Amino acid sequence: MSQDSEAAARLGDSSLLRRLNLAAALGAFIKSPSLTLRELREIVGVSRPTAEDLLAELLEYGRVEETAAPRQPAGRGAGRPARHFRFRAESGYVSGIDIGAHKTLAVVTDLRGNPLALHRRDLDPGLPAADRLRAAVDTARACWADAGLEPGDITGVACGVTGALRAPEGVFDVAAGPAGSGLTPYSLPGFTEVDVAAALSSGLGLKVTVANDIKLAALAEHWKGAAQDHRDIVYMFAGHRAGAGVLLDGQVHQGRHGAAGEIGALPMLGWESAVERLHARGAELAAGNTSMPAGREGELVIASAALQDPESIAVLIEFAEVLARGAAVLTLAVDPEIVVLGGGMSRGGAIIAEPFRRELSKLMLFPIEVVTSTMGADSVALGAARLALDAVFADLLDVPGVDPRS
Amino acid sequence: MSQDSEAAARLGDSSLLRRLNLAAALGAFIKSPSLTLRELREIVGVSRPTAEDLLAELLEYGRVEETAAPRQPAGRGAGRPARHFRFRAESGYVSGIDIGAHKTLAVVTDLRGNPLALHRRDLDPGLPAADRLRAAVDTARACWADAGLEPGDITGVACGVTGALRAPEGVFDVAAGPAGSGLTPYSLPGFTEVDVAAALSSGLGLKVTVANDIKLAALAEHWKGAAQDHRDIVYMFAGHRAGAGVLLDGQVHQGRHGAAGEIGALPMLGWESAVERLHARGAELAAGNTSMPAGREGELVIASAALQDPESIAVLIEFAEVLARGAAVLTLAVDPEIVVLGGGMSRGGAIIAEPFRRELSKLMLFPIEVVTSTMGADSVALGAARLALDAVFADLLDVPGVDPRS
Repeated sequence: MSQDSEAAARLGDSSLLRRLNLAAALGAFIKSPSLTLRELREIVGVSRPTAEDLLAELLEYGRVEETAAPRQPAGRGAGRPARHFRFRAESGYVSGIDIGAHKTLAVVTDLRGNPLALHRRDLDPGLPAADRLRAAVDTARACWADAGLEPGDITGVACGVTGALRAPEGVFDVAAGPAGSGLTPYSLPGFTEVDVAAALSSGLGLKVTVANDIKLAALAEHWKGAAQDHRDIVYMFAGHRAGAGVLLDGQVHQGRHGAAGEIGALPMLGWESAVERLHARGAELAAGNTSMPAGREGELVIASAALQDPESIAVLIEFAEVLARGAAVLTLAVDPEIVVLGGGMSRGGAIIAEPFRRELSKLMLFPIEVVTSTMGADSVALGAARLALDAVFADLLDVPGVDPRS
Repeated sequence: MSQDSEAAARLGDSSLLRRLNLAAALGAFIKSPSLTLRELREIVGVSRPTAEDLLAELLEYGRVEETAAPRQPAGRGAGRPARHFRFRAESGYVSGIDIGAHKTLAVVTDLRGNPLALHRRDLDPGLPAADRLRAAVDTARACWADAGLEPGDITGVACGVTGALRAPEGVFDVAAGPAGSGLTPYSLPGFTEVDVAAALSSGLGLKVTVANDIKLAALAEHWKGAAQDHRDIVYMFAGHRAGAGVLLDGQVHQGRHGAAGEIGALPMLGWESAVERLHARGAELAAGNTSMPAGREGELVIASAALQDPESIAVLIEFAEVLARGAAVLTLAVDPEIVVLGGGMSRGGAIIAEPFRRELSKLMLFPIEVVTSTMGADSVALGAARLALDAVFADLLDVPGVDPRS
């Protein structure tokens, strides 16, 4: 009936309560350099026999090991010293991959999420799907080799890709709009015809989860970026294209079809024409500049706007304003704590951020805090690593075992 | 790190685990006519001593009592018969109040949410705030008297009011747009200058929680209406005005300022002019019809459209289409399982529902199920009762006690 009793009704089997205790124990170890049994018991709030069972289970699965006691202040009394245990962050590794129009990028982290290596390869925006997927597989393998790891060391892999995604029962694959809808959300060449998750899984020999890249960038912003202190976040992506993602309670809000945040599909927002004008201006400025790498035209527009080029300034203001209209829509829809402006164009500084803030505040019922992303070009790959990490812990907590409380 | 471990980190004290067990026990009793200790133990999934502690606590707080055994099939074996216990739905009562432009309405239910009485009073839309609040207080008291209850019998009261609301730390009061914003969301006369919660609490001698009426109608639809099988819901209100509410995981998604769903404030949706045209057409049709009660003009427009009046048909189609545009915005923002079309105008049938569905499906990336509300004019008051019930159970589960698992 109440939120608590509904939550508890779902807890109506003891294995879920056991998992919650195990999760709490694991969380306690992840947050501390080391813990004694007494400390574990106090943090998780369980009886001594339960704490012993939890510790035994984590030791058995190799996630925790005994370690030397941290340096003690002198004269701490006699008696047998307590045994100390630590989380084995190196007991598994996860990898996050980003497949975009102009690059593919992979990171690998330990189970605490500390990055060990990053590998990047530039791609031609017209590259066919099969070649793009092969490049992503090669990049991930190169990244793992950089960190001195074999594929067998990798516990989980996730990948962010550009495009709207479906999420039937948690399995993602790239989707276009419904047949005959006339809606074809932006996606990579050929990606509406391949099963990205299957192709990457087969190429890497590991199960790969695929998610929308902008949602993963939002997750990275919450994990390691500008939105670490907030749990309800609207993330606006200003890059070679425009996009949005929503985090609620610190998790990506996927929605029923994995489409939450896909407001760019609404013609009334005018995103498509603003993005087209930005690309056209970038192409004009790049004409004759053959050394300009593909996908960096936005930087040219920003640079020329900084030199007071009126045409580039007008194009960027329009781009910022249509993005702000999308932010207003999402902010009124979910009423978040904060709006994050991210993506490569957000690094253009005030020239994007000021018209964005001005237009957004005009449309709001209440003042809303806007921050600019502090993440770099690795945000999607890091968000993917975080998603893989979540899956590893979810698996870990699903192991069978006796109920430690009975 | 993972969702489970984050949830568990918040569970880092044993009292919360104890509350979850207590909530599960209470939920089990609410769902069954009666339970034995063995049945309770099996449903909650705890050891016998823990189940005994939980039962003792619920007995002590008067929420459960021993009852006669249900009729048994003959020859069920010898031995001492098991004792049976039942939830005391009559151990408390909650009341839900609706304060609208044209009426105030109150319901009272037992702790299982069964309505015992409903009382309604029509109001003049221009009635000053103080008189409107007094009428609501009188209506609630009359409702309680209808059910044979004294104010002292009422455990919790919540009230839905028309208007955008702020929710600082869970306390709601009516708010207009920020000063100088030019935005003045629809609210009842004078209600931006009074503390509605304080006025009702003082008038009734009980703490009253105040919430936005449309969000409560959405909650009622999930509780007892067309959306009982769904947890992620976009609710569109088509009545004397237009509005929306979002439920996520079966709960009202309030957002940071209690403003989630307030997309009507976006000028690009064109809600205001469509509602004005509806009112104007209703006023034209009502001219000379002095017996027409205030606030029922929409019914006149629907009736004349059913008689093929082209002007009324055009006005209703426009109203349905702008509402559909709002539904598209919210559906792309949160990607719900279902869209519910509610409010008095939704009872106009196909004349509203068909253009609504058509326009919504044009704007969507994916097909979305649309259902029409099955609730009547008491939906806001019932949603308020449900909110009050949630608060009663939350309080109940916060009682101090020993950890039943240690």
